[in-house]
Amino acid sequence: MTTQYIKKHFNLIPPTEDDARSDRTRIADELYDEFGNVEFSYDAVRMLYPLCREAEWDITVTLVKKNGFYEVILVESGDTSAHCYAVAVDYGSTTVKSKLMDLATGQEVASASCPNPQIEYGDEILSRIFYTKDNYEHLQEIHSKTVNALNTIMDLLEEKSGVSKKEYLGIAIGANTTMCHFIAGLFPWGIFETPYAPVSTEFDLIKAKDMGLDIPGYVYIAPSSANYLGGDIIGGLLTTDIEKEEGYSVFLDIGTNGELVIGNSHFLVAGAGAAGPAFEVGVSKFGMKAEDGAVNHVKIEDGKINVEIIGGVPAKGICGTGIVELLSELFLNRFIDGTGTLHPEMSEDIITIQNPDSGEDELAVIYAYEEDGDPIFFSQTDIENFIQTKAAAHTMVASLLEYMHLTLNDIHKFYLAGAFGTYVDLESAITIGLYPDIPRDRYVALGNSSLEGAKRVLLDTESTVRMKYFTDNMTYVQFGEVAMFVQNMMAAQFLPHTDTNLYPTVMERYNKMNK
Amino acid sequence: MTTQYIKKHFNLIPPTEDDARSDRTRIADELYDEFGNVEFSYDAVRMLYPLCREAEWDITVTLVKKNGFYEVILVESGDTSAHCYAVAVDYGSTTVKSKLMDLATGQEVASASCPNPQIEYGDEILSRIFYTKDNYEHLQEIHSKTVNALNTIMDLLEEKSGVSKKEYLGIAIGANTTMCHFIAGLFPWGIFETPYAPVSTEFDLIKAKDMGLDIPGYVYIAPSSANYLGGDIIGGLLTTDIEKEEGYSVFLDIGTNGELVIGNSHFLVAGAGAAGPAFEVGVSKFGMKAEDGAVNHVKIEDGKINVEIIGGVPAKGICGTGIVELLSELFLNRFIDGTGTLHPEMSEDIITIQNPDSGEDELAVIYAYEEDGDPIFFSQTDIENFIQTKAAAHTMVASLLEYMHLTLNDIHKFYLAGAFGTYVDLESAITIGLYPDIPRDRYVALGNSSLEGAKRVLLDTESTVRMKYFTDNMTYVQFGEVAMFVQNMMAAQFLPHTDTNLYPTVMERYNKMNK
Repeated sequence: MTTQYIKKHFNLIPPTEDDARSDRTRIADELYDEFGNVEFSYDAVRMLYPLCREAEWDITVTLVKKNGFYEVILVESGDTSAHCYAVAVDYGSTTVKSKLMDLATGQEVASASCPNPQIEYGDEILSRIFYTKDNYEHLQEIHSKTVNALNTIMDLLEEKSGVSKKEYLGIAIGANTTMCHFIAGLFPWGIFETPYAPVSTEFDLIKAKDMGLDIPGYVYIAPSSANYLGGDIIGGLLTTDIEKEEGYSVFLDIGTNGELVIGNSHFLVAGAGAAGPAFEVGVSKFGMKAEDGAVNHVKIEDGKINVEIIGGVPAKGICGTGIVELLSELFLNRFIDGTGTLHPEMSEDIITIQNPDSGEDELAVIYAYEEDGDPIFFSQTDIENFIQTKAAAHTMVASLLEYMHLTLNDIHKFYLAGAFGTYVDLESAITIGLYPDIPRDRYVALGNSSLEGAKRVLLDTESTVRMKYFTDNMTYVQFGEVAMFVQNMMAAQFLPHTDTNLYPTVMERYNKMNK
Repeated sequence: MTTQYIKKHFNLIPPTEDDARSDRTRIADELYDEFGNVEFSYDAVRMLYPLCREAEWDITVTLVKKNGFYEVILVESGDTSAHCYAVAVDYGSTTVKSKLMDLATGQEVASASCPNPQIEYGDEILSRIFYTKDNYEHLQEIHSKTVNALNTIMDLLEEKSGVSKKEYLGIAIGANTTMCHFIAGLFPWGIFETPYAPVSTEFDLIKAKDMGLDIPGYVYIAPSSANYLGGDIIGGLLTTDIEKEEGYSVFLDIGTNGELVIGNSHFLVAGAGAAGPAFEVGVSKFGMKAEDGAVNHVKIEDGKINVEIIGGVPAKGICGTGIVELLSELFLNRFIDGTGTLHPEMSEDIITIQNPDSGEDELAVIYAYEEDGDPIFFSQTDIENFIQTKAAAHTMVASLLEYMHLTLNDIHKFYLAGAFGTYVDLESAITIGLYPDIPRDRYVALGNSSLEGAKRVLLDTESTVRMKYFTDNMTYVQFGEVAMFVQNMMAAQFLPHTDTNLYPTVMERYNKMNK
């Protein structure tokens, strides 16, 4: 495994009249056996004198692998080979998450995150895209703030790790296609407007100095495969073995959008679609992010709804993982039936409330109370919305499998990417039919695979070869073109599914609880 | 033959929902068959939108060949393929000479030159090197002025050609090792001080923007082979067939320094040494550059010295080519003998003057008069100095041939580089023993081969491969290590040479004139 940045320490024989090779050639010759004909960045050449002589040729050079060759980007006095740091970033549309990596040991040194500064231009990505439409100054403004968040991140990492940011060599980023455009300063309009052609899906290594970042190396942005399948997903696939195995794998990342890849060592197909904001906020009056005050675990025991609240503070609302458990428990305890209809006879917590949007009366289930004693509830409409959302996720998987003439039995591994996939209770998610009912040991929760992918880029240069393989070999399927998509969607709007044969373990449990 | 910058015009099929490849990929795919996997400069990627769509995909892209791949550096609307301009430069220590090249036709469009701005820091290169010693601000100051002369050159070329400098894609430069350091902003001190190791002898392609030049491409600086064998010589060799032929070639460039390369398809050896300022200025009180007022041709007829003066103005002094003819004529007409001693009995123009330096009386030959009637002369001391200089040049060639166990008969081609080699009267130069007495058709005058070499770099990418061959395969010989060097030098301090057998045609002519 070769790291993206490599430090090499040497004690070179100083020049003599019989060996008056140039400083550059002296170093290049020393590197030749291991790295072939190296190049030097313009900055690196200018560092050579008087540094090499003052250091009496006890020097450390930093190399980076570029297209088919290595480039020397830094020359330092003495042995600095143990100081080889770079930054991995998941540039999310809401939050920028990062890890400082020690490439000499492969270890994480610190983590830091900050809000995406684009939020100033709108929570929705679309409003940010609109802001830059046909306006170069606006694009530069967002681009500049977007890049500056990388400086903020480095400041935070410096603070947390004690490792000076002067030691950071480069940055590797995973991000969706729009974020990639903002980072690189490209107009994202094409991503939004038909025919949905981005300016670029490849970014490679951009000199950090050219982006206004004072680090000697490069900003690497993971390639996108298409409009809706960004570098966050392509980078995320690095954390799987999807293309290495004969057995079929599913990679599913559910957030505001759902992205899905199915494949094995012979093929890769992908699909993506709006999953709705159900898994983040907005599905319910009380929907919220997984932060202090959010209900994240729900259990019904003896007809009573018990919840766990993040931070141990009074409840304010419910996050995506909480909703999944809530629905699963409501279903298993028959507070709702397969259509999601609330049954007030099953619990006194099911009451009639006024729909906050329509003003009409409807049923709702109270699962917690606010500090002031006001009830926190999930309404019949909320349930219907969420079932739409879970049906969409289910249908993406089902339709892509059908498209490839595969069945659930063919699935060897089912990778769950992203925060939701990591923190959701697997059994609950299967119970409501969000995920398929396959043996649980086939599921692999990946965590923040976009950030993990960026780490892999730093730790293993083979990663870029793999990502090129992913983008070159990925077939993108428009769900609109899948024959059974609408029928599948209809069939999935039921708990766990219209075809209960697809959910044998769920039905067994349900029947056992309700016999 | 592939030019360094290539323009390709396309009418691409615009994106559709079925073919929503990114703008970059759309172009890269079109280029693939001819150029393989191309890269895009960061600037070029940012040019794509909205340009491509506004141009309705009728676009021209500019590519440059880099290390093993092509890079797109410019995207323009419409068909600009007939506008493919780049600048060739010979960055001399006194004068910066340039040509604007049309790479679409291979033709020169205009020429321009300007003084080297470093002259402000001293006529002598050494004083410029001293100015920057251990002083980064001083280095930046000279570097910045050095680069700015390239802007000046481009302004002049724009003026002369009518082709806007906005159309210039890149610059290719031939220069000696010190000039290369100043252009690239590297400390040149190592070139001066033992063990004479420069910072770099390779420069490759430096992004013009990184040097503060507002052109989309690169500044290419020809590689040096060693301290004393700069990119002007390595580039100059491109104008020869030295490494392609079985027969041996000599490449000789005489200026303030003399540089010499001997070789064939099997080997290349080089030597260099101070030739003294004899060929430019300073050898005589009246020594001057080849400009208006300089005697450049001399003929003695019926005992009378006739001269030609550049510009047809009154004489002010004599240039190098004039000195060679003067000495040749003085010798053939026995005004001086083989040792260079003036014989006043041969001409009333040989008079006693006061040496301007020592104040002592000595003989001198008057060859012209200034506007006010004062005589312009060449003194006995001037003659002796010049014989030293011509002996040095002769001895470099003789010693390197001996070192290689070659004789004059083995010389297939004798390339004369530089202004002196181009304008000097060949017969006169042979007469005084500056050049060897070999068949005249073996001599090839190359003109400004450094500038011509820079042109070749622009016109044929194979040039960089050839230069790499030159630098990789050149053996540098220290004349101090050649056994016979001192003896050769002694033997050459005679007109034409102590061993008159080496100059059969000269002696035949001399004897015929003086029988």
